[in-house]
Parts: sequence; C-alpha cells; structure tokens
Amino acid sequence: MKIAVIGLGKAGLPLAAVIADSGFEVVGIDLDEWKCEMINSGKNPIPEEKGLDELIGRHGGKTLKATTSYEDASDCNAYIVIVPLFLDEHMNPDYAALEFAFRSVGKILKMEDIVVLETTVPPGTTENLVREWLEEESELKLGEFYLAYSPERIMTGYSISRLREFPKVIGGVDEESGERAYELYKKFVPNLHLVSNARTAEFIKIIEGCYRDVNIALANELFKIAEEIGVDFYEAREKANHEYCHIHLPSTGVGGHCIPVYPWFLIREMEKKEKFSHARLLRVSRELNDEMINYWAEKIISECLKVKKPLNEVKICIKGITFRKGVKELYHSRNLALAKLLAEKGLDAGVWDEMFTPEEVEELGLRWREPEEADVVFDCFELITLVKQA
Amino acid sequence: MKIAVIGLGKAGLPLAAVIADSGFEVVGIDLDEWKCEMINSGKNPIPEEKGLDELIGRHGGKTLKATTSYEDASDCNAYIVIVPLFLDEHMNPDYAALEFAFRSVGKILKMEDIVVLETTVPPGTTENLVREWLEEESELKLGEFYLAYSPERIMTGYSISRLREFPKVIGGVDEESGERAYELYKKFVPNLHLVSNARTAEFIKIIEGCYRDVNIALANELFKIAEEIGVDFYEAREKANHEYCHIHLPSTGVGGHCIPVYPWFLIREMEKKEKFSHARLLRVSRELNDEMINYWAEKIISECLKVKKPLNEVKICIKGITFRKGVKELYHSRNLALAKLLAEKGLDAGVWDEMFTPEEVEELGLRWREPEEADVVFDCFELITLVKQA
Repeated sequence: MKIAVIGLGKAGLPLAAVIADSGFEVVGIDLDEWKCEMINSGKNPIPEEKGLDELIGRHGGKTLKATTSYEDASDCNAYIVIVPLFLDEHMNPDYAALEFAFRSVGKILKMEDIVVLETTVPPGTTENLVREWLEEESELKLGEFYLAYSPERIMTGYSISRLREFPKVIGGVDEESGERAYELYKKFVPNLHLVSNARTAEFIKIIEGCYRDVNIALANELFKIAEEIGVDFYEAREKANHEYCHIHLPSTGVGGHCIPVYPWFLIREMEKKEKFSHARLLRVSRELNDEMINYWAEKIISECLKVKKPLNEVKICIKGITFRKGVKELYHSRNLALAKLLAEKGLDAGVWDEMFTPEEVEELGLRWREPEEADVVFDCFELITLVKQA
Repeated sequence: MKIAVIGLGKAGLPLAAVIADSGFEVVGIDLDEWKCEMINSGKNPIPEEKGLDELIGRHGGKTLKATTSYEDASDCNAYIVIVPLFLDEHMNPDYAALEFAFRSVGKILKMEDIVVLETTVPPGTTENLVREWLEEESELKLGEFYLAYSPERIMTGYSISRLREFPKVIGGVDEESGERAYELYKKFVPNLHLVSNARTAEFIKIIEGCYRDVNIALANELFKIAEEIGVDFYEAREKANHEYCHIHLPSTGVGGHCIPVYPWFLIREMEKKEKFSHARLLRVSRELNDEMINYWAEKIISECLKVKKPLNEVKICIKGITFRKGVKELYHSRNLALAKLLAEKGLDAGVWDEMFTPEEVEELGLRWREPEEADVVFDCFELITLVKQA
C-alpha cells in the first residue's frame, strides 16, 4: 500500500511523516518547491513541530518523498487530502484549493483506490462536492473507488503526539468506504473511531470549534460584566470552575484558521435552508468575539485620557499582533485588527511583536513602536495589564 | 456558638442538619409549622435527600430545634439566611422573602453577631440591600455586627455529600466579616475558600448558572442543526466531547429555580447601567432555551400529520411535566409550558407524569392522558422518541 498525502502544511506534513514512520511508502504533494526539496533532503520545514525533525530526518527523501507533481503519485492506492479551506469576503467557504486537489487526484484515480479528506469542511462536502469532482475527472463511480472523511485534530506544535494519542474519527460516504478507510487509518492512528458516515464526521469537527467559539464569547461577555460591577473576573472564574463548569478565558476575540471559521459553515448552511433562527447563538457569539476589539479600544482610550497630552499625541503600543502567542500567523488576528482600529480612529497607535521585524510591521501598513517608548501599552496576551508609562 | 438557619427548604434543611451534626446547637426557622413539627419529632420532611433521614433522626428536636418564631433564635450568635428569591413577571428579582427574613433577623441582632446569606442573589445584594435591612432594624452599624455571603451549591438529592465534599466559597462585605465567616464555616464545610468579598462570591454562583444556560442553549442549537442536515446529534456529541470539549444535552429548555433565573440577575443589572449590549449572549441563550418548546411543538405536529385523523382529533400525550425527571417541581417547567402551548394551538394534548395524579393534573388546567391511549407520545425526558402509536 502506497499512500499520497496532498498538502504538506502544518497539518499535512506531520500526518505524512507519521504514516511513513508506520512503515508505509508515502508520496507528499505540495505546490511549494522549496518545501519539497527541504523534505527530500531530510530537513524539517516546520521546526516548531515537536518530534517532526526526527521523523523527517529518518524518512525524508526515502519512504517519504515530496513532489509538486500529482503524476508522481499515480501508483498510490490511497489519497489523503489536507489542503486549506478559507472563507471569502462573504464568510462563504472558498473551495478553490480543495477542488483543484480533488480534480488532480481524480485524473490519476484507479479502480479500488481510496480517497480520504481531512480538511475541516461544511457538512455534506465529502459526499456531494468531493464525490462529484472525483467522479467527473476519473470517470469512475463511487463503489469503484472509496471515499471517506476524517477530520484533522492537530494543534500546532503538538500534532504528532495528537495523532498518536488523541481520539480521531472517520466516516465513509457509504458503508464500504467507511470500513475500508477505518482499516487503513488504524494502521497509523491508534485511537480511531468509525462513525456512521462522512457527514457525521464533518459535523463532529465543526461542533468542537463551535463549542470553543461560544464559550470564548461567554468568557468575554462575563469579563465585561465583571469589570462593570467591579469584580475580578479571573478570581471568580478560578473559583467557579470545577468538573461541571468550564468557563474559558477572555480575549481580544478569536483568530486563526479554525475557530472563527467553522461556525460560519453552519450559519451559512442554515441560511441556505432558510432556517435563519437555527444558528442564532453561533452568530451572536461570532459577532461578540469579533467586536471585542471595540471594547478594548475603549479601555485603551480611557487609559490614554489619563495621560497629560492631547489624545492624538498619546503614544500607544499594541504588544503582540499574531492571533496566538508564539505562532507567526495573522489570519483573522483580532490583535492586528485592534491596532488598525485605533489608527483609523486617528490615534497614534504603533505595534510591537517579538516575532516581527520593524520592516515587516511597516509592510502591514502599521507603525513599529517599542513598548518602552509608549505612554500606554496594551499587551494582547496579558489583557489585564494596561500599562501607563511615565 | 449557637447558629440560626433561616429557611428549612431543600437547601436550608440539609445545611442545618450538617451544622448540627458538626456539634453545634442549631435553631432552624421556617414559616411551615408542619415541617417544624416533623423535624422536632426526628422525622425528615425531605425524604428524597440522601442521608438526611439519619441526621434529622439523630439531631431533630435535640440540638436541631425547628421553630416558626424568630424570637426563639434571639440567643444565637450566627444567622444563616437561605430563603428563596424568585423573579417577578418582568424577570426582576422579588426580594420580599429575603427582606422579611433579614428584617426579622435585624430585630434580634446583637453586637458581634455574624450574618451570612446563602441564597443566590444579584451581585451587590449583600453589601447593599441586606446591610441596609439589618442596620435599619437592629440600629447597629456594620463593624458592630459582621456580614458575609456564601452561595449554596446544593443539588437536590445530593446536598449533604455536596456540603461535605464540594468546594464552597465565602466572602465578607468587609475584611473582618470575611475572616470571621470563614472561621465559622470551616467548622462544618471542609472544602471552603475565602474570596475577596461578598460581591465576588455572589458573582461566582451566578456565572456557574450562566455557563450551564449558555451551554444548554448551544446544545439545543446544535441539535436543531443536526436534525436539519440529517446527522445523529447524540452520536456526534459523544465523539466530539473530550477533555477540552463539553457539549451539553439538548432539552425542552431549562426549568427550575436556578439556571433559568440567574442569567436575568446579570441581564437586568447591565440594563440598569445602560450597558444593553453587555449581556447579549446571556439574553439570546435565555430566549433560545425558552423558545425550544416551539421547536418541539412543530416536531410533534409533523408527527401528528402522519396519523390518519383530522389534526385536532389526534390524541397527543406529553409524558413528564416536571422540570426535571424525578423532582416534583413545576417552577418554570418547559414541559408543562409545552403541553399548554399545544392545547392553546387547539390540539388535543393531554399529559401524563408518574409523580402526579389525574386530579392534580386537572387542577393545573390540563387533561390527563395515559401514553397507551395516545396517537403520538412525546417523552420530555427522552427527546428522541416521538412515538406514533397504532
């Protein structure tokens, strides 16, 4: 059994490496030539991923071969697709990368091959769109090939241990597909669970994200109320939480490719079915999290008013612009959005981030500012410290 | 040290019994003469409470004396108030029972006495209203007496084990009050935590309820979406939940004296402060849970349409009208509300409940109906079984 992994990003490469380490021949496909060369020479292009150096060093260029060409994977028997899905400006999923990947797989698909999608997608995507793309390009019918869905559950930095320990689900678009995919995956994912079908597996991944988004929104709302009534939210949270209560932490909102994206899959799906009221809580939570930057902007301005200078001359430093501490990633970063919001209001807001150079920050259209040079510092990863200098 | 417990309900009586069992003399005050007589003759008026029989048998009429008269508690040194707080028709708290209890305590309050409130209340109640009531009636000033707040965290049926094992918080309206109350409570609550002040302790109790209400609303919303897209919610939930994900169960809404009440404390508080947007998620969750009966009514009607009879002749049975299974309590019961809603729509909806007699049901203005005699049975405690008979 030779396995192709399409997409060698933060989720795909650890998966490809773990599969190779389980004794399979793996062909990894990625559009990035530099990345393929790195891997083939045994070097890890994602150094922050724990344990990946060792696996790439051991298998890269040997049983794990990276390539930009789908043709090189034409003798594989299984195709695992794990490429990104973004939202367009209307918060609808943009399937371009997925469609390209599956149509390319379709062109090399053979009888009895098995295809598995890992990217988080709206429920129904695998059985509808993916099946159509594959059938159109391959001229095979489902039943002649097998199709399943198994959502990645990685966490940047811990992806390998997650694959080896964390529960993972898998479901087929038909029974035979589910069983075959389960048998294959069991060989490299020990904690694997077969569910009724692909749609259920898709839904499972999305609702985990929804749980997080809604609970972060709840934490943000309770934080605002606590501030309003003069209670220390962090003290209250610590004492309220126990085995039946899991209040999350407040934040500037939710960024990155996952949590702020997944609720939209269900919101848009319900809108398409004209069930507008069926995703109210998801929508309010999304808005509440996205609007937290307005709340923090007001807090920062209150602090600026205490500085004896005209308001637009008070030097503000937004400390930390990545969406999460320690991950150089700005997708839907609310910290970046907060810095832009303050600048838009006509305030003198600069940013500082340990992962960026002044030049990179200026390319984003923002001003670089060292915390030491600011009158008011807002640390996006330590929300409670609004520091007034001097 | 002699301790008075005011309110011998489901929360107060187990507390009074546990205090007596810790070696204190306890005077329990309740307006219900029959209940006082029961207790004084060593009989437990709340038989469903595990372990209470034994404690009442051991201390009732001896070190635990029940009375309807506050005068009988005039030689106590500590007063614990645990009487109900309801919402009025505008969802504002109705303080009548609390005010009566504290004014009565105020009349017998002496220098150095300590007063603790256990009822769940809006944040700020202890330091403001309760202090005023006590100072007005006693003509003492805070500092001459001590005042603290420690929320009950009981669960009907398990109150005694909760008091003995579960973490409990306590906070004073001033530092001295907090410390004195903590020292006292430690003698009968082993897992006790002193927090900054009474307001923080009040907030802690409320946000636990808010966490539950919002997460039940989320479960209800995700359930509706799962039904809409043809996914088994229960299967998805089971597989989605792990140590970082705690998706709750769907329901007909949330009833009882606690969860549907507490969010309103914060919603109304934010409205008073003209911070209308600060409790949006809490409000939407409240509405979503309360409106679940409309969703279930539609489901039931769809089922009725399959029966070959005119719609208003289809015999519906709502099985279970209490707010929780096994607790004979109808306060804010959504199951009762569902039965009434169906009847209002002109449908032939009857109810059945193992805890009620036909006569009791008729007194509620509802029709009694055995499940066996119905065309469609909706079991409020087993939501997935919409049973069509014959």
